[in-house]
Amino acid sequence: MAYKIAVLPGDGIGPEIVAQAKKVCDAITKKFGHEFEYTEALVGATAIDQVGDPYPADTHELCMNSDAVLFGAIGHPKFDNDPSAKVRPEQGLLRMRKTLGLYANLRPVNTFKSLIHKSPLKTELVDGADFMCIRELTGGIYFGRPQGRSEDGQTAYDSCVYTAEEIERIIRLGFEYAGKRRKKLTIVDKANVLATSRLWREIGQKVAPDYPDIEVEYMFVDNAAMQIITWPKRFDVMVTENMFGDILTDEASVISGSMGMLPSASIGVHTSVFEPIHGSYPQAAGKNIANPCATVLSAAMMFEYAFGMMKEGALIREAVDQSLEAGVVTEDIADGKKAYSTSEVGDWLAEYIE
Amino acid sequence: MAYKIAVLPGDGIGPEIVAQAKKVCDAITKKFGHEFEYTEALVGATAIDQVGDPYPADTHELCMNSDAVLFGAIGHPKFDNDPSAKVRPEQGLLRMRKTLGLYANLRPVNTFKSLIHKSPLKTELVDGADFMCIRELTGGIYFGRPQGRSEDGQTAYDSCVYTAEEIERIIRLGFEYAGKRRKKLTIVDKANVLATSRLWREIGQKVAPDYPDIEVEYMFVDNAAMQIITWPKRFDVMVTENMFGDILTDEASVISGSMGMLPSASIGVHTSVFEPIHGSYPQAAGKNIANPCATVLSAAMMFEYAFGMMKEGALIREAVDQSLEAGVVTEDIADGKKAYSTSEVGDWLAEYIE
Ligand SMILES: CC(C)[C@H](C(=O)O)[C@@H](O)C(=O)O
Ligand SMILES: CC(C)[C@H](C(=O)O)[C@@H](O)C(=O)O
Repeated sequence: MAYKIAVLPGDGIGPEIVAQAKKVCDAITKKFGHEFEYTEALVGATAIDQVGDPYPADTHELCMNSDAVLFGAIGHPKFDNDPSAKVRPEQGLLRMRKTLGLYANLRPVNTFKSLIHKSPLKTELVDGADFMCIRELTGGIYFGRPQGRSEDGQTAYDSCVYTAEEIERIIRLGFEYAGKRRKKLTIVDKANVLATSRLWREIGQKVAPDYPDIEVEYMFVDNAAMQIITWPKRFDVMVTENMFGDILTDEASVISGSMGMLPSASIGVHTSVFEPIHGSYPQAAGKNIANPCATVLSAAMMFEYAFGMMKEGALIREAVDQSLEAGVVTEDIADGKKAYSTSEVGDWLAEYIE
Repeated sequence: MAYKIAVLPGDGIGPEIVAQAKKVCDAITKKFGHEFEYTEALVGATAIDQVGDPYPADTHELCMNSDAVLFGAIGHPKFDNDPSAKVRPEQGLLRMRKTLGLYANLRPVNTFKSLIHKSPLKTELVDGADFMCIRELTGGIYFGRPQGRSEDGQTAYDSCVYTAEEIERIIRLGFEYAGKRRKKLTIVDKANVLATSRLWREIGQKVAPDYPDIEVEYMFVDNAAMQIITWPKRFDVMVTENMFGDILTDEASVISGSMGMLPSASIGVHTSVFEPIHGSYPQAAGKNIANPCATVLSAAMMFEYAFGMMKEGALIREAVDQSLEAGVVTEDIADGKKAYSTSEVGDWLAEYIE
């Protein structure tokens, strides 16, 4: 039976980078004799333009019936200066997360030897940093109700809400990933101020005895924001709530200096979504210059996390490493040397794999 | 008429560093012929130990009747692993902020030539960075109600609440500081997700026309967390809400590499509080090794912000700069060279001023 993959290219450079990931998947299919069934669907600004909804019912239906979703990027500048516009790409993204039950966003943060000089941090601080950020993605202040305005419009409010169940699910995931890695879990909260954070900490303390080989530490979010910069190598797995995760994962992503190289996975109840951490980069759209590696590495995560195909994932990673070695890279990381186009990099990776 | 200064040394190294700031203030008094009246009071873990309350009524009374408060640091490790302890130093801090109406926390972020090599960032990125973070300090999710647990204890909730008035007050302050600096204001929010942030953005747009010479930009908090690291020099004045400010100001403070050198001011309705941004550093307490400069520079901010005494503030800054030049520094920044004690640095600064 063929695995079903929903392909959602989205906006800006989305279609170009997803096309390269698709090439790489095809090469894997050939090489390992798998069978996959791909179906494309609309999402984001493109979907608003075509059908008036950033996450149309058809797209949702497709995702629900797919084993994995390969996602490009969404966002268009025309929405940027009007956060109160009625229909916005982000709404589609949030609806997608909620309705697919994508409760855990996983973002590995690591470095590439040949790109480490691009890090804003000093090399000795960041060289060898290798940690996994796990962000809770369907709870907290993103989805808590009530949210809105008082009748006179003069007061606004948001609600941060977490249930014990939501917290336990993601904290256990954190412990499990730590178990497969260097056995250290950092739970980030603001338990000295927030009631929700105190529940996070309570549940951490409740489940920790089930994982006796994992060293667990609790860290306030303000301290975490400092440690990510001053001592990134101290982290192995970090788990945190939705809003803190939004801020800290983006902060963590820039320290490697390789934004164009970082993949993510959003693990869900109904399916899982794999996407680069970068945005839709509208200035580069259609120019065939964007770096496809983050999306290709997201496909590697898809093989590993959605299909349990570890060798396939490893081979994709190897191909990307080798492309860096060989200097077959897009302009963002070419450092004044010859820059290859998006599709040339995709071709090279696919060929390497075959 | 003598200005009244409340002195709240607090916990850990608090008493030692405040003593040096006091010396420096005395030197300024002598030199310029001012008169100040100092009164000490309890705060923090010390206050819990002595009177069972981290912010006793006497202390509050004193602050209410003072023109400025010079604050050391609070916090003790015995409270760290039990965020649900009934009485905690942080509660005192939050109560103090609320009851004194300390609505604006100002944190200058800048670098010192001789310390820039201590920054985790590459020198060329951080050299010359000079911006002011303004954090709203008495609203948002820190104080919003309801906060707590459902009856069965299985759901926790916090509320983020802002009124138009609270937002306008701090955004106007941001515009005013920008006007005295490089005329650029960055308003940080998460208007693509939060109702409170949309009110922030609305009010920014409403008041901006009153400051036609200020360039204003709106930035999402996740993006701000990245830009602080990748391009700190782009910022002049940044203003944001309480929780985002907690995270971003701490993040910003480490990029300079001079944590022991950074002061802050909390501007209030009833009085203003001046304190170093670092904590109570309990491991160093009583050892006469802590760096007093952040507290001394907080006193400089006190002269400028609370008393409008600009020459006095400038002279204190000059003294600190000169102590760095002369190598009269504590061990945290001595770089293997001779380290001076806390009180020796204080003596040197006072003498320089006189
Ligand atoms: C676009 C926005 C709603 C989204 C978020 O805040 O989750 C984005 O920043 C992200 O991290 O995926
Ligand atoms: C101790 C804590 C409550 C406090 C805060 O979160 O405001 C601290 O982190 C700060 O920034 O002053």
